[in-house]
Amino acid sequence: MNEKCMELAAQLVPKTFVKVAKDASHSREKQIENLLIHKKIPEEGWDDISIELLLSQLALMDSNNFMGNCGLGEREARVASSLVARRHYNFGHGIGRSGDLNEPQPKAAGSSLMYKLTNRFLEDLFKLMGIQSTVRCILVPLATGCRAIVVDTKRNGDQLETDVEGILKKIKEVGANKVLCVMTTTACFAPRACDNIEEVAKLCKQFDVPHLINNAYGLQDKSVMCRIQKAQRVGRVDLLVQSTDKNLMVPVGGAIIASFDEDLLQTVSKCYPGRASGSPIMDVFITLLHLGKSGYLKLVEERVEKFKLLSEKLREIAAGIGERLLESPQNPISMAMSMSKLPADELRSYGAKLYIRSVSGTRVIDLMEHKIICGQEFKSWGSSTNDYDVPYMTAAAAIGVTDDDIDLFMKRMKKIFGKNQ
Amino acid sequence: MNEKCMELAAQLVPKTFVKVAKDASHSREKQIENLLIHKKIPEEGWDDISIELLLSQLALMDSNNFMGNCGLGEREARVASSLVARRHYNFGHGIGRSGDLNEPQPKAAGSSLMYKLTNRFLEDLFKLMGIQSTVRCILVPLATGCRAIVVDTKRNGDQLETDVEGILKKIKEVGANKVLCVMTTTACFAPRACDNIEEVAKLCKQFDVPHLINNAYGLQDKSVMCRIQKAQRVGRVDLLVQSTDKNLMVPVGGAIIASFDEDLLQTVSKCYPGRASGSPIMDVFITLLHLGKSGYLKLVEERVEKFKLLSEKLREIAAGIGERLLESPQNPISMAMSMSKLPADELRSYGAKLYIRSVSGTRVIDLMEHKIICGQEFKSWGSSTNDYDVPYMTAAAAIGVTDDDIDLFMKRMKKIFGKNQ
Amino acid sequence: MNEKCMELAAQLVPKTFVKVAKDASHSREKQIENLLIHKKIPEEGWDDISIELLLSQLALMDSNNFMGNCGLGEREARVASSLVARRHYNFGHGIGRSGDLNEPQPKAAGSSLMYKLTNRFLEDLFKLMGIQSTVRCILVPLATGCRAIVVDTKRNGDQLETDVEGILKKIKEVGANKVLCVMTTTACFAPRACDNIEEVAKLCKQFDVPHLINNAYGLQDKSVMCRIQKAQRVGRVDLLVQSTDKNLMVPVGGAIIASFDEDLLQTVSKCYPGRASGSPIMDVFITLLHLGKSGYLKLVEERVEKFKLLSEKLREIAAGIGERLLESPQNPISMAMSMSKLPADELRSYGAKLYIRSVSGTRVIDLMEHKIICGQEFKSWGSSTNDYDVPYMTAAAAIGVTDDDIDLFMKRMKKIFGKNQ
Amino acid sequence: MNEKCMELAAQLVPKTFVKVAKDASHSREKQIENLLIHKKIPEEGWDDISIELLLSQLALMDSNNFMGNCGLGEREARVASSLVARRHYNFGHGIGRSGDLNEPQPKAAGSSLMYKLTNRFLEDLFKLMGIQSTVRCILVPLATGCRAIVVDTKRNGDQLETDVEGILKKIKEVGANKVLCVMTTTACFAPRACDNIEEVAKLCKQFDVPHLINNAYGLQDKSVMCRIQKAQRVGRVDLLVQSTDKNLMVPVGGAIIASFDEDLLQTVSKCYPGRASGSPIMDVFITLLHLGKSGYLKLVEERVEKFKLLSEKLREIAAGIGERLLESPQNPISMAMSMSKLPADELRSYGAKLYIRSVSGTRVIDLMEHKIICGQEFKSWGSSTNDYDVPYMTAAAAIGVTDDDIDLFMKRMKKIFGKNQ
Repeated sequence: MNEKCMELAAQLVPKTFVKVAKDASHSREKQIENLLIHKKIPEEGWDDISIELLLSQLALMDSNNFMGNCGLGEREARVASSLVARRHYNFGHGIGRSGDLNEPQPKAAGSSLMYKLTNRFLEDLFKLMGIQSTVRCILVPLATGCRAIVVDTKRNGDQLETDVEGILKKIKEVGANKVLCVMTTTACFAPRACDNIEEVAKLCKQFDVPHLINNAYGLQDKSVMCRIQKAQRVGRVDLLVQSTDKNLMVPVGGAIIASFDEDLLQTVSKCYPGRASGSPIMDVFITLLHLGKSGYLKLVEERVEKFKLLSEKLREIAAGIGERLLESPQNPISMAMSMSKLPADELRSYGAKLYIRSVSGTRVIDLMEHKIICGQEFKSWGSSTNDYDVPYMTAAAAIGVTDDDIDLFMKRMKKIFGKNQ
Repeated sequence: MNEKCMELAAQLVPKTFVKVAKDASHSREKQIENLLIHKKIPEEGWDDISIELLLSQLALMDSNNFMGNCGLGEREARVASSLVARRHYNFGHGIGRSGDLNEPQPKAAGSSLMYKLTNRFLEDLFKLMGIQSTVRCILVPLATGCRAIVVDTKRNGDQLETDVEGILKKIKEVGANKVLCVMTTTACFAPRACDNIEEVAKLCKQFDVPHLINNAYGLQDKSVMCRIQKAQRVGRVDLLVQSTDKNLMVPVGGAIIASFDEDLLQTVSKCYPGRASGSPIMDVFITLLHLGKSGYLKLVEERVEKFKLLSEKLREIAAGIGERLLESPQNPISMAMSMSKLPADELRSYGAKLYIRSVSGTRVIDLMEHKIICGQEFKSWGSSTNDYDVPYMTAAAAIGVTDDDIDLFMKRMKKIFGKNQ
Repeated sequence: MNEKCMELAAQLVPKTFVKVAKDASHSREKQIENLLIHKKIPEEGWDDISIELLLSQLALMDSNNFMGNCGLGEREARVASSLVARRHYNFGHGIGRSGDLNEPQPKAAGSSLMYKLTNRFLEDLFKLMGIQSTVRCILVPLATGCRAIVVDTKRNGDQLETDVEGILKKIKEVGANKVLCVMTTTACFAPRACDNIEEVAKLCKQFDVPHLINNAYGLQDKSVMCRIQKAQRVGRVDLLVQSTDKNLMVPVGGAIIASFDEDLLQTVSKCYPGRASGSPIMDVFITLLHLGKSGYLKLVEERVEKFKLLSEKLREIAAGIGERLLESPQNPISMAMSMSKLPADELRSYGAKLYIRSVSGTRVIDLMEHKIICGQEFKSWGSSTNDYDVPYMTAAAAIGVTDDDIDLFMKRMKKIFGKNQ
Repeated sequence: MNEKCMELAAQLVPKTFVKVAKDASHSREKQIENLLIHKKIPEEGWDDISIELLLSQLALMDSNNFMGNCGLGEREARVASSLVARRHYNFGHGIGRSGDLNEPQPKAAGSSLMYKLTNRFLEDLFKLMGIQSTVRCILVPLATGCRAIVVDTKRNGDQLETDVEGILKKIKEVGANKVLCVMTTTACFAPRACDNIEEVAKLCKQFDVPHLINNAYGLQDKSVMCRIQKAQRVGRVDLLVQSTDKNLMVPVGGAIIASFDEDLLQTVSKCYPGRASGSPIMDVFITLLHLGKSGYLKLVEERVEKFKLLSEKLREIAAGIGERLLESPQNPISMAMSMSKLPADELRSYGAKLYIRSVSGTRVIDLMEHKIICGQEFKSWGSSTNDYDVPYMTAAAAIGVTDDDIDLFMKRMKKIFGKNQ
């Protein structure tokens, strides 16, 4: 309530009461003011009241919520169902303009503001996770994913590592000027390691080839982010792509595209042909306000602990049934347990047994599935290489995983593999 | 967003966009300002965005929503479940202070303000419905209802009317100084009429006896309100009691106590021993903002039409089965159809048949039920008298009734009474 | 989804996926089934999904949510504003029938069921808190509070205790058969102690006088509940009254009336004249499902710790300014710090200073306010006695109080009393 | 509630009440059953209660809502903020699997089911709007938009029409085997007409070139849909692309891709590289349930009327200031008013004047802006051609436009152009 309303309120309620209330309302306003001044994730997460207050104030800045607005375009953010309007906090205009995601939308100052702030928050998040160079981010309402020429990994012990030599050879073979980009991956299923992005970055620099890092769920891990920072220092890194749902605990639907080169990012932003859904942006905006920096760091640190815990427990289980945890020291999120003692044709049934017992996310790789996608052959599909010889099961300790998840998993594993123990 | 935030926003979004958005936000603020200036129901109903905006701003004025509040009393409006907090829009302090409902609560300036405004709205509503004398209202979070000495009605044609002579006699018999109050009823089941409140008011004035009008669902009808106004002019009317759910389309739980005498109302307000639930107040507050005066009047007028429609349709049905609509011209909301041709012991089964076909609110009076409550005998229970001779069924056209309700009712009536046609 | 829908779903989504989903849906159903079998607070709190699922299923049992319902009574739970409908989860019929709160409402099987379950939950809660005798509860949508003849407390050290002798004398003086009831209080501001309810219960038994215990916020404390149990064993206890907001962390608005005598409780239930608001019932229902027994006990135990912490901290502060914590060992929730060194006429300004710094719930008793209520004189108003000689300030560690509350309070206390240190 | 719960309920609430409630609950279940049997938009829109009931039941089928689920993948639909979870009705898994949008997701049977149903609804909607041939649809969570080689329109009177000859010439020039597809547009700003899609379809058939119709907001208009049907009959139509927000009154964010060739659509579905946001799908799902067929048709018919009304009113305004409505009889949604009497360099200021008066969606084309996009030159940008000679302003009567919109627009137009009148 503005100054005047507060004065009017004092006609009905004692002045002293209103005074205290005004001061209190003022501190909420101040909170929003500070957010707009700093354009950073708040240190401490906000409560839901503040978050919804800000959302409602932003929504009022969009034309579809103007009193006396008349809309005569072909797209005016009219919403038929009040359930839909409500769940979008009365936002409807999406983000961007035709031809540039990042351009403010005249009909939607509030949506545009939310988008700008969210991108700033993400830049702040990269800093928090260890990136020291200046980085620019845009959040795009697309899931991540892509397809390309594959240079197979090479094996080192259990671990599957980047075949840097192979990439070098392939660049020379194809011709550096014909390579759109080299794509590396930081976050993948064990026993594959985080790619050797530093060495690939050097190659890319040397041959003047763009380097795109698929960092799908690497943003949650400081060691990965640290390697990205190093890769950028010693070589070439053009774009980083990461999923919002995998790193920020929001529903599926968004990707963060980040770059150390602002112009490049502008070009990417102009590639999205139309206006886009604002829904994944709102999810990220709310979540970062909710968690604050301290909340996110807490999740990040807890995840590291859970990873250790899960490794230990799984190692025990493995030992009990004559199997072992594959060694993939450079994969900080996913792990794999060998399944070499069980009959090969029964392996999948173990996956199914876990699935029907509500264990989700584990994968059994029996090395027996071959796939051809766009002419590219993938032997032992799912294993990140063409000739792995140990069948295995993966499990990940990703952000938000809890002790309960791990306990329940162990119980069910014991039940299923019990007869083998 | 305040002036300063809007300026800051212009660092991220073009100034012109922010300017338009600021003007738009301003008109919402203006709307709240006007409400606080006039303290009346808005002419046109507000949209949900404005209503929720106001509620959230009021909630911020209550201590439980202060940032940095520390609560060290035995009751601090802490709420355990976020579902509960959410459904109360983060209000938790209830209304009033121990010993006076109407006294502002220091911990809850917002709740107190909402309560004061709601009472003002109700006074405005009485005006809208035809009361010209100054009237004061308090909304109490109690359902209506009471028990007393009964002076039976007397019959005039089908209609049951006030036995004014009987009341006079009873006052004399008991002694006027021993009568706590005379209670009349405006709204009741046909064939009972609205009480002759004008004549009773005269008696009360003459004998200096308080007069309380049970106007449970009379507020929705202008003819009833007009009679109350007249009663007050020609005689004595002390208190009016009406249900919120029956008149204002809110969930059960509140009563409006109104009086032409402000001091008397203050005394009533002090009778409620503790702090009270704010929930029924919030319901009324939201609803009156939502409907606006025009919305309420539209409902009131539609109801009068539906009453006519229901009368006609029921009259037809009655004719088809050799029954008739009882004549109760002074009951503007409820009506009764005779059920004299059916075996007396089967009458109740007709009520049950309607009930299991999702017809609610009709009542079958077979005149065969006798009850004794607090020593007072009620023959032919439910009929508003002790010796009615025509069994009947009542139906009401109350506020919010729709054409669909009436159509469905007719179809089901035809099915049930079909064999008799 | 029922069996058939699941089968149909398998036309669109693989059977195995549907199978797993069906099992999962089934476990939610099972949860509801178990609730209905045991009619007790669940051991572990439910998540919001289950709570809202149950609420929506109960709401569907009320006539206003029947598809094809036609309502022809004067009260059909039609709701004008969708905001209001939504915040009541589409419940609208309130609870009870005219003349008995506890009687099921034919139009509202769901509401009635919720009410019955809530009352059962409360009985379970009394057990949890230490009552071993069979107890019956009804939740009434009224705040607690009452007025009566006062027998002053007597002082023992700092503590104000029950004057059992005085009560005995007063019963004899008035005549036991003319005493409606003796009312004791368990929960009150320090330095008053919990009343000696055991001795009063004996007196009441001896003189055959009803005994009502105002247990406003005593339900949260096991030591209080234990004394109530003992009082019932050694003497007479008729009714217990407790606030829902003070004990269960819900918004103001409900009271739990409990009795060891089921017939007596039935009589009380019939005293509420009309149908009543279901809103306070819903709040309690949701909250107990949300917390579960373990969640409530955790709050109860934490509160005991916070009480100790607050006592220590306040004792320190007091020492620093030459004051002391008054000794009131029999008050487990509230405490009082003497304020005897400050000028008497400035004491209130300290209360105001705390208030404008968002400290709520503390009370400064300067012993200088006298009040007359209903002809009864109260000297040194607020102090639970007529002649206390040490001015003081109270603070309570009630359920839900946090470390943050206590820290902030200490900081502000130090600021305000700093100059005296 | 299932059978067993209902039986248990009858222990607390009378059997007859429960029986009626059970029947009522059953009719809601039946409604869902019928939806799953027919997989079509319901004739009449559902109420919010049914919609939310279905959503909650679908959500329970997703693994993140299983009780006792343990998630050990890198993406488990954990949601950090309860605000986010709530606004997505606890859905979090998005839709599709890596590599195919349309493939059911094992972790998310409910989401998958919702997606399948939504696509079926859309096919049903095409039928409703006049498409008789079998059509398949997929909803993709992307906004529409694209860039290509341009064949300029040719002028006929005021109207800009398809240069079919020009397209023929260009196909021959480029070589049919090198043309990825011909793209036509049905819905565009007046004075451009709907493209001559029938003739282009014939050309495409003749030269064996794919034909993609940008039907961005044409789905709302039966005349456009009728032409699409005809084009498919007489020639070749491969893909239809339409925006959800422009046709279905949902927030920006989705596109409907439709085809008469199921295999082609499968191929398109496999082009989306990862899992995608389910948010636009949920919006469409809710909206079509909410409107039902009858609700959508009502909107469609009202729009046609509003289009006539807006044309007449704008024609009047134009006449008053010496301008005229450009004749574009083949554009059923957008219209244009000449602005030839005003100084060319002031034209844009009129756009701004409307904008700051909260008129959104109108566009002033002053023919003075030239743009180069991807090397392609666009003279008189915004006019759909390179050499139009009449500056003009467009306005659209799109779905959901109201009388109020038109009234307000007229008032503001009169104010702005008043001095010219």
